[in-house]
Amino acid sequence: MNSDRNAPIGVFDSGVGGLTVVREIMRNLPEERIVYFGDTARVPYGSKSQATVLRYSRQIVRFLRTQNVKAIVVACNTASALALDTIENEIDLPILGVVKPGASMAVTATRNKRIGVIATESTIHSHLYRKLIQAEDPEITVFGKACPLFVPLVEEGWTRDPITVEVAKRYLAELLEKDIDTLIMGCTHYPLLRSLLRGILGDQVTLVNPAYETAQALKRMLEELHLEKESSCPEEEKYRFYASDTVEKFLAFANSVLPCEIREAQQIPIEEY
Amino acid sequence: MNSDRNAPIGVFDSGVGGLTVVREIMRNLPEERIVYFGDTARVPYGSKSQATVLRYSRQIVRFLRTQNVKAIVVACNTASALALDTIENEIDLPILGVVKPGASMAVTATRNKRIGVIATESTIHSHLYRKLIQAEDPEITVFGKACPLFVPLVEEGWTRDPITVEVAKRYLAELLEKDIDTLIMGCTHYPLLRSLLRGILGDQVTLVNPAYETAQALKRMLEELHLEKESSCPEEEKYRFYASDTVEKFLAFANSVLPCEIREAQQIPIEEY
Repeated sequence: MNSDRNAPIGVFDSGVGGLTVVREIMRNLPEERIVYFGDTARVPYGSKSQATVLRYSRQIVRFLRTQNVKAIVVACNTASALALDTIENEIDLPILGVVKPGASMAVTATRNKRIGVIATESTIHSHLYRKLIQAEDPEITVFGKACPLFVPLVEEGWTRDPITVEVAKRYLAELLEKDIDTLIMGCTHYPLLRSLLRGILGDQVTLVNPAYETAQALKRMLEELHLEKESSCPEEEKYRFYASDTVEKFLAFANSVLPCEIREAQQIPIEEY
Repeated sequence: MNSDRNAPIGVFDSGVGGLTVVREIMRNLPEERIVYFGDTARVPYGSKSQATVLRYSRQIVRFLRTQNVKAIVVACNTASALALDTIENEIDLPILGVVKPGASMAVTATRNKRIGVIATESTIHSHLYRKLIQAEDPEITVFGKACPLFVPLVEEGWTRDPITVEVAKRYLAELLEKDIDTLIMGCTHYPLLRSLLRGILGDQVTLVNPAYETAQALKRMLEELHLEKESSCPEEEKYRFYASDTVEKFLAFANSVLPCEIREAQQIPIEEY
């Protein structure tokens, strides 16, 4: 436990996608300090096994502890689905994933009790969204669809491209046939496809962004634990960024996603943690 | 140096793509024993830095040495482009990548001295195909194009899909404008798109498959070094497969690509090498 309210929040992801969660934390908890780690040397997690994702997540949590964080946000749906359960029993720090806040919002949003989830293969196969949703309301039916091409399409920059529209139509067809009225964007890259998805889904389907819900849940958690930041700190000390591969591409993506300019990131030999 | 002619050949790749090289070795050197390692826990390499790909490749070479191989084939274009140069100066085993055999065949094939290369981002940025081709013939012009969506499209199984045709048309358009008459498929997954690419390129462009050329180059190298296998061995000892992630998906892909049935593969903690 670290009861220093002015300590940073540790946020991690398999790569750069978790920066969409950082963006929401920056917007909604503007006082908080953040230490971010992106596992760019081993990205992606979404096609890998539970054992491997758990091993990687444990190493990252050990690294974040060396940064004296007061809480940890698992800003990766796959790691939240495959590793969080185990890790939260191993550490004495408050820790929060993106799956539970997204699932809870979807339960609130649905009217016809039919929810769709789009995510990586590993997240879909974990069935964690389904379990958490049905724990809150067993009458809800959840339909999952793995969308492995969405991350590479976003990383190619084709977020408004006719080809991406075709891919999305194919992925979403079976969910739309199921008459869902709520869709969870269960991978951190997917909010960057929001307007494209909106165009296919129409106005009748509520889109849930777990990144936004996670920032709200983090705010509530810090308040309950009396861990909200008290004093402001110099802007240059506020945010720190780390990655496991070299940082040039990381910085370019960060600056395309975040509301402030990030000048520096540092490479960490994560296998050594 | 390992002068045991009956020792296996070590073959490695970032994941499963290198199995297309194994397939060519099986077909063209049917007597040889093979030990394959696929780095499925850290795949892909194609978007990662040289330093990271070199570190991973060194670990794999150390693992393959524990298997007493007589030669090593780097069955990954990215590792061949980013790591082979350094590693071949560090070991006393014959080692061969896929880039040089592919480049040499393209030099032989081109008539108008205009060659295209499609590959991962890291392979294209290394400019190794260009350097090797121009070392053989400085008058040849080489045009590179990174095609980051091809691997995920192949892994999605969309190898004959209209969406993949659209993506390929877009990637190939600028190469076709350059009037290339030869195209190197510079990533191990791409030969699985051969007939789709052929449909777009027409009959005027020669498609070069470095996997096939590498098997031929390996044959010549073993003959020159008097390392060809002498005696046959029981079928069940002939091929051994290792991966860094759990092996279920690896086995499924292997059995869809290879000409014989693979029943077993073993997971290796590659970071420890």
